Amino acid sequence: LKVNWLRSEGDARLDLDRRQRLGMVEAIWGEHKSPEQIAAILRNLHQASEIGLVTRVSGGKAEAVAALLGDAAQQLELTHHPQARCLTAGLTAPLAQGPEEQVVVLGGGSSDLGVASEACLALSCHGISCGLLLDVGVAGLQRLLSQLERLRRAEVLIACAGMEGALPTVLAGLVPQPVIAVPVSVGYGVSAGGQAALNGMLASCAPGLTVVNIDNGYGAAMAALRILNLRIRRGDAAAD
Amino acid sequence: LKVNWLRSEGDARLDLDRRQRLGMVEAIWGEHKSPEQIAAILRNLHQASEIGLVTRVSGGKAEAVAALLGDAAQQLELTHHPQARCLTAGLTAPLAQGPEEQVVVLGGGSSDLGVASEACLALSCHGISCGLLLDVGVAGLQRLLSQLERLRRAEVLIACAGMEGALPTVLAGLVPQPVIAVPVSVGYGVSAGGQAALNGMLASCAPGLTVVNIDNGYGAAMAALRILNLRIRRGDAAAD
Amino acid sequence: LKVNWLRSEGDARLDLDRRQRLGMVEAIWGEHKSPEQIAAILRNLHQASEIGLVTRVSGGKAEAVAALLGDAAQQLELTHHPQARCLTAGLTAPLAQGPEEQVVVLGGGSSDLGVASEACLALSCHGISCGLLLDVGVAGLQRLLSQLERLRRAEVLIACAGMEGALPTVLAGLVPQPVIAVPVSVGYGVSAGGQAALNGMLASCAPGLTVVNIDNGYGAAMAALRILNLRIRRGDAAAD
Amino acid sequence: LKVNWLRSEGDARLDLDRRQRLGMVEAIWGEHKSPEQIAAILRNLHQASEIGLVTRVSGGKAEAVAALLGDAAQQLELTHHPQARCLTAGLTAPLAQGPEEQVVVLGGGSSDLGVASEACLALSCHGISCGLLLDVGVAGLQRLLSQLERLRRAEVLIACAGMEGALPTVLAGLVPQPVIAVPVSVGYGVSAGGQAALNGMLASCAPGLTVVNIDNGYGAAMAALRILNLRIRRGDAAAD
Amino acid sequence: LKVNWLRSEGDARLDLDRRQRLGMVEAIWGEHKSPEQIAAILRNLHQASEIGLVTRVSGGKAEAVAALLGDAAQQLELTHHPQARCLTAGLTAPLAQGPEEQVVVLGGGSSDLGVASEACLALSCHGISCGLLLDVGVAGLQRLLSQLERLRRAEVLIACAGMEGALPTVLAGLVPQPVIAVPVSVGYGVSAGGQAALNGMLASCAPGLTVVNIDNGYGAAMAALRILNLRIRRGDAAAD
Amino acid sequence: LKVNWLRSEGDARLDLDRRQRLGMVEAIWGEHKSPEQIAAILRNLHQASEIGLVTRVSGGKAEAVAALLGDAAQQLELTHHPQARCLTAGLTAPLAQGPEEQVVVLGGGSSDLGVASEACLALSCHGISCGLLLDVGVAGLQRLLSQLERLRRAEVLIACAGMEGALPTVLAGLVPQPVIAVPVSVGYGVSAGGQAALNGMLASCAPGLTVVNIDNGYGAAMAALRILNLRIRRGDAAAD
Amino acid sequence: LKVNWLRSEGDARLDLDRRQRLGMVEAIWGEHKSPEQIAAILRNLHQASEIGLVTRVSGGKAEAVAALLGDAAQQLELTHHPQARCLTAGLTAPLAQGPEEQVVVLGGGSSDLGVASEACLALSCHGISCGLLLDVGVAGLQRLLSQLERLRRAEVLIACAGMEGALPTVLAGLVPQPVIAVPVSVGYGVSAGGQAALNGMLASCAPGLTVVNIDNGYGAAMAALRILNLRIRRGDAAAD
Amino acid sequence: LKVNWLRSEGDARLDLDRRQRLGMVEAIWGEHKSPEQIAAILRNLHQASEIGLVTRVSGGKAEAVAALLGDAAQQLELTHHPQARCLTAGLTAPLAQGPEEQVVVLGGGSSDLGVASEACLALSCHGISCGLLLDVGVAGLQRLLSQLERLRRAEVLIACAGMEGALPTVLAGLVPQPVIAVPVSVGYGVSAGGQAALNGMLASCAPGLTVVNIDNGYGAAMAALRILNLRIRRGDAAAD
Repeated sequence: LKVNWLRSEGDARLDLDRRQRLGMVEAIWGEHKSPEQIAAILRNLHQASEIGLVTRVSGGKAEAVAALLGDAAQQLELTHHPQARCLTAGLTAPLAQGPEEQVVVLGGGSSDLGVASEACLALSCHGISCGLLLDVGVAGLQRLLSQLERLRRAEVLIACAGMEGALPTVLAGLVPQPVIAVPVSVGYGVSAGGQAALNGMLASCAPGLTVVNIDNGYGAAMAALRILNLRIRRGDAAAD
Repeated sequence: LKVNWLRSEGDARLDLDRRQRLGMVEAIWGEHKSPEQIAAILRNLHQASEIGLVTRVSGGKAEAVAALLGDAAQQLELTHHPQARCLTAGLTAPLAQGPEEQVVVLGGGSSDLGVASEACLALSCHGISCGLLLDVGVAGLQRLLSQLERLRRAEVLIACAGMEGALPTVLAGLVPQPVIAVPVSVGYGVSAGGQAALNGMLASCAPGLTVVNIDNGYGAAMAALRILNLRIRRGDAAAD
Repeated sequence: LKVNWLRSEGDARLDLDRRQRLGMVEAIWGEHKSPEQIAAILRNLHQASEIGLVTRVSGGKAEAVAALLGDAAQQLELTHHPQARCLTAGLTAPLAQGPEEQVVVLGGGSSDLGVASEACLALSCHGISCGLLLDVGVAGLQRLLSQLERLRRAEVLIACAGMEGALPTVLAGLVPQPVIAVPVSVGYGVSAGGQAALNGMLASCAPGLTVVNIDNGYGAAMAALRILNLRIRRGDAAAD
Repeated sequence: LKVNWLRSEGDARLDLDRRQRLGMVEAIWGEHKSPEQIAAILRNLHQASEIGLVTRVSGGKAEAVAALLGDAAQQLELTHHPQARCLTAGLTAPLAQGPEEQVVVLGGGSSDLGVASEACLALSCHGISCGLLLDVGVAGLQRLLSQLERLRRAEVLIACAGMEGALPTVLAGLVPQPVIAVPVSVGYGVSAGGQAALNGMLASCAPGLTVVNIDNGYGAAMAALRILNLRIRRGDAAAD
Repeated sequence: LKVNWLRSEGDARLDLDRRQRLGMVEAIWGEHKSPEQIAAILRNLHQASEIGLVTRVSGGKAEAVAALLGDAAQQLELTHHPQARCLTAGLTAPLAQGPEEQVVVLGGGSSDLGVASEACLALSCHGISCGLLLDVGVAGLQRLLSQLERLRRAEVLIACAGMEGALPTVLAGLVPQPVIAVPVSVGYGVSAGGQAALNGMLASCAPGLTVVNIDNGYGAAMAALRILNLRIRRGDAAAD
Repeated sequence: LKVNWLRSEGDARLDLDRRQRLGMVEAIWGEHKSPEQIAAILRNLHQASEIGLVTRVSGGKAEAVAALLGDAAQQLELTHHPQARCLTAGLTAPLAQGPEEQVVVLGGGSSDLGVASEACLALSCHGISCGLLLDVGVAGLQRLLSQLERLRRAEVLIACAGMEGALPTVLAGLVPQPVIAVPVSVGYGVSAGGQAALNGMLASCAPGLTVVNIDNGYGAAMAALRILNLRIRRGDAAAD
Repeated sequence: LKVNWLRSEGDARLDLDRRQRLGMVEAIWGEHKSPEQIAAILRNLHQASEIGLVTRVSGGKAEAVAALLGDAAQQLELTHHPQARCLTAGLTAPLAQGPEEQVVVLGGGSSDLGVASEACLALSCHGISCGLLLDVGVAGLQRLLSQLERLRRAEVLIACAGMEGALPTVLAGLVPQPVIAVPVSVGYGVSAGGQAALNGMLASCAPGLTVVNIDNGYGAAMAALRILNLRIRRGDAAAD
Repeated sequence: LKVNWLRSEGDARLDLDRRQRLGMVEAIWGEHKSPEQIAAILRNLHQASEIGLVTRVSGGKAEAVAALLGDAAQQLELTHHPQARCLTAGLTAPLAQGPEEQVVVLGGGSSDLGVASEACLALSCHGISCGLLLDVGVAGLQRLLSQLERLRRAEVLIACAGMEGALPTVLAGLVPQPVIAVPVSVGYGVSAGGQAALNGMLASCAPGLTVVNIDNGYGAAMAALRILNLRIRRGDAAAD
């Protein structure tokens, strides 16, 4: 049996000017990539002095990447984040949860931890301080209502929820800030896969709620970043 | 052109022992029936000394039935209920909204009035007192929270909602009674037809919520009736 | 490879006043939780003198929880229920199947045993006596008809069915009590996942049937509990 | 404004040897055809000495066809069947409901009359005797059980049902003959359009039930005809 | 860790009078049953002198059943049919492929072998002779056309197809016998799971085609049996 | 025929503190409301000195409302906006299209005009200047690329598209600001109803894109308003 | 009631260099456009010396456009094509059905005439000769097989079909040319809207079949044009 | 336990005259076939002097086939292509990527490599030269625009994309050649399984785009081959 590998024209075509064009680092979607591909991409990003953020990487795949990188793994500050299922390189700052939370990421239940963590980590890669607030689902409403003061101090709220996905609707009826809803693919029966939560969020009767794809914690973080960057860009001008 | 009407074997096969078997009058689903068919059924029910309740009847069709019944219409106390889109015969009591509400029917918005009215009317046909509470959607939470005392006094709650359908979930997290959720087919985009509300209610994280078909106000009323009849049957025994 | 665990702000935010607010113990959905999370929650519930009920726990995960709890496992009366796939702590009473069945849980086929068992167990956790009746699917109608006397003595009926899900419809046409339908995710082709059974139950021509999410035996039990609690609350008052 | 009609190559390409090949007359699906097209086809069939059966024709369209045919309408014995929404030409026999019913067409409710009539009419066009039995839905089971003797005498049963579509399942568990299920597009919410009934019939736990497309009364009749023709062909041989 | 098995009220409630009522042996759906359950059922069927047919049984599960039955396995003539994924007990006759094929089971491709085999085996359990004809998909039409003579001699045709499922449509346009279509869950993209084939068969423009659930080879066989039993019952009468 | 109108407990329960709580006027969804209901609501809003914005109002219904209001119509400055299908009261400012566009609303084709107009009008009701840019669909890419300078000057972009809905994806890859995507329900076949556009936007490979319900121009405007209000609130603080 | 028309920035942004870039005239999708918009576009195209092709225009709308254009209608050679539901301007050549058919458009039934006509007309606008062949559905296979010689002479085949949509699959198994499949939205039940035909075509087991959106006769014509233009471009080069 | 293998009537019924009829080698869909079946088919093809192309074969299955063929494996030039997941026999030429690319296969991201490779390999089996261009997704538009010159030189373009699938739409708006779109089943949430990409491509506003089934790289290659064969057949004639 011969084995015939197709040689493509070189490495992946990285979108390295994304930071300049959009103000974002390029994140790598790790789910369908081999450890070899991920290791090569991280080396390229390191050479370009870019932070590396790879999403949807299991612990086992992370170790395989580390083994491939060998000594360079330490130099790249290769780190795996088990809950967020992400791999980072060159991210030296701690997950920012400072006294001032620019973004608060909420989750209806503890099953939303993975998606919420991905959002927090992606914000941290861009220097945004971020708080995490879980188990505030609407079936026990007082848990959410008791946190309103804290929520009103943030600039953007990201609300993750599976099942019927009602948390963002209730939240957006209580506070005036931008609220970004993330449906989460936990559930069973009609809520399996997150479609019921997604439709509930899109159909929301709370005005001005926006939605991203199911489980897309990274996308919600980038939407928050677009908003915060705007404030900085314009706010700075206003402050002159 | 000859026209050849198929003669069926007689009138509709009414399920007249339903009241004895299930404790319910037989309601007639009027949507696909002609005024002739409805008039014939109402005459039969009158002869059997049964109340007549026909759902999904427009004003125009109601008038056509009345015309067909002629003088008998008054004798049958034929009445059209425009919001509930129902036609009744032999229902003399007012829509029961006494001091003690056995059932409260809630609606997230004023667009839920039709479905909520159908539920109230069906309960009234069985002598159940029923209150109606609209515009308590979860995007303005304080409107619901301010009514909790009243809601806690009822025996069964029926919660109608379209859009994302979150009202029953929030309600069932606040009160211990049976809560029956009715998705309503108002909305557009992903909520058109009521499917998003239905799935949200089925996927609810509030324990013990039950659901009926979209727009099925009559069915929710009958589910409440089964519960209330149970209490009477067993409560009477306990009181002996 | 560094591994960076996100530390959340403490343990899961349990809804411990749920028993007072809704008359129900808080059940834990075990499917997406690790043995460590479940063990921690069970310890907390034990300290709060609450029964622990964790749904969707495989035998292997149950053993892992037991190993983590060590000697405390016996003190907590940790028990796994293989058919219901549930783990309980502090549940001393046997599964209640006394001479008087308050609730009967029916299943169309023996494949519905898992969902039906979850319902029975959840009722037992609240002291409700419960009978189980399987293999009464409508393709062999005499099996159901022969049990009508027994069914008429119960207060609430829970009917579980996969495939086309016609059992609850036929049942609700025969008896006057509350009937709660639970679609079951057994089947293949168009019935895979339980969606055909769910839609059949929602579309039912039997009046007053209510439905819960696919495989949600626990939810059906809590709906029955809401009804039974109502009878007690009101029945007691009537009996004074 | 010029109007440019595309001239196709002649009349519709009728499948006139269908009777010889399949033992069936060619039925014309009238829904998307203009009165002009239908009139032309009926003339062609008449010249070929074939019966004409056009399905899905409203009363108005039938009159338009009659007007186009003029005096020939009487010669063609043009007849409209309002309930079945069909137009026939050359069908002289009455709708066959003789003492011996080869086929019985059942309907769960009176809303199934249209589809059931289409099936009966299509059978009559082939000389098959056919009975009609409506209002035997499974929510009032005794109505079906009381007809078992009659049903056991027929050779093929066609069971039409909307809503949850459980009638064919219950029926096929009671009798040994071929049962052909026809989902009907009456209903609302999840049963709108007949999809819930269709899936319920396909998912049926009764062995040997077969299904045709929603509202396809004609198709069910042709399936029964294939079976009856087989009996004749083989039975004749056996009787030699 | 205590383990608490729920004891049900005895063995599965077999529908042993099905043979008398419907002329069919009761088949057991093995997919969700444990080897212990299957072994117990087979013992019961053997005591009742019934053939045992268990569908959807893998080779490994079959061996586990055999091990549980021990010496009785040979006495029961326990046999596994790998392609049909079925387990039989008491079936002594060979798979009937005699000179006269009462039923021919066709498959569009060799991937339809499993479903087609299940149909053949179920027919053999009832003494029906059955032929198998694979690889006659419509993309190479001559393969089907060359077999028309053989097909015309059979009494019932069962046509299995995945992908776009066009085989039954083309077949039913060519021959006058009953044609039962079985969608098969092979394919990918829009044809994954067999839904495209199912809808194509239901939507078929060939008159009188009937359809069963996806992969339901057993059900198609039972539908054929209903037809063949009818011929015998009536044919015998005719022959007197 | 008696006609029995259910009297609800008063007028609609308006959420008049929404402006204070969320910084938004309450918009009225006009689709399912009668002219009488709309006229009553507009009177109430006028008394509360609030602007009235009613969406999904046809020209005919607008005239009916005006007739009901009589002389008050002029006092309320009642205005119908045919393209946006909205009715406003008390909105004196012109649709703001000043030299500085805070928001630009883009549409892929001229069929997106209705949804885009609704967004512009809703922004104008809150004093936000807004530009409109149609016919920049991605099948003729140069039309979009030629407008990049203008787009980069805005603070928030709202991109409306039907069909495959690719415009927001391409746009969000070109500019760093917040981009809110609105699927539009124009199209046919797989794009009928806007579901294909919705899914395309949610699945977008451009990071940080957020989405609202199909045709929800008003919702997109409110999401933009949340962002702009944030900038003002925080920008003001920063500028102190 | 004031009426406030939003003035957009001018006329529709036509993609007038499409002919140069893609070799196609720009077709206008008329379904959601007003007669005023269509008339303005046709004037612009005339000034640019371009043919005008507007799809999905009813007879009534065509007359309204003609009335708006007044005398210019004749100058523009405004023509309505009722079957194709298209309006053309400047198209002087007859629908090309010369001795040599470059493209043959097939339809399974006469209900496919509308979509097939749209394809023919769009080809004629680009000078391509085109034949039309209806009523060659696969339920009467000999009708297709008898036309194979004619079909083999064409360069590209466009196959339109509703219902189960099997025509293109059978066709592509018989001939080696490019076959473009167009699902047609005729049918009912599972085939309503054309989704069953679409999925059947995509799932086809015939290699090299390509598919366009439901009812997209214009799109199929443009795909054929891309192929034919390629031949010309390359064929010319080869012929040099 | 007896094991009873059904013996089918011989080997698979290969469609060996496909090359003559359609100009294509017969590809074998390997997903549901055993190594034994594949080995037998490859031997048959070798005897018929045909190239063997088996799609959807994992590395492990390829090795199993090689082991079964033994020494013949080398003689057959058995080769596995890991990225394309294909097994070939008798393919001696290298993957053709000559100076002149007749077809260019594009992929939006590196996750599209598998499907794109399958297309390239299938073309190579027919002697077509083929280039591969990945990572040209529309969220970084300049990557595609910079390759336009190269793309304009090819004769047919195959565009593979997952997620929202916008690449083919943008591409077909830029170049005049035939563009064949292949949706790819990478993605998550609404894009899982490739349905969002598929619908986006069918709904495309770019005229003349055609689509094949999800992941059907082989089908796209065969569609390109039909086009190229046409050019050769006709171009040769023109060149005479």
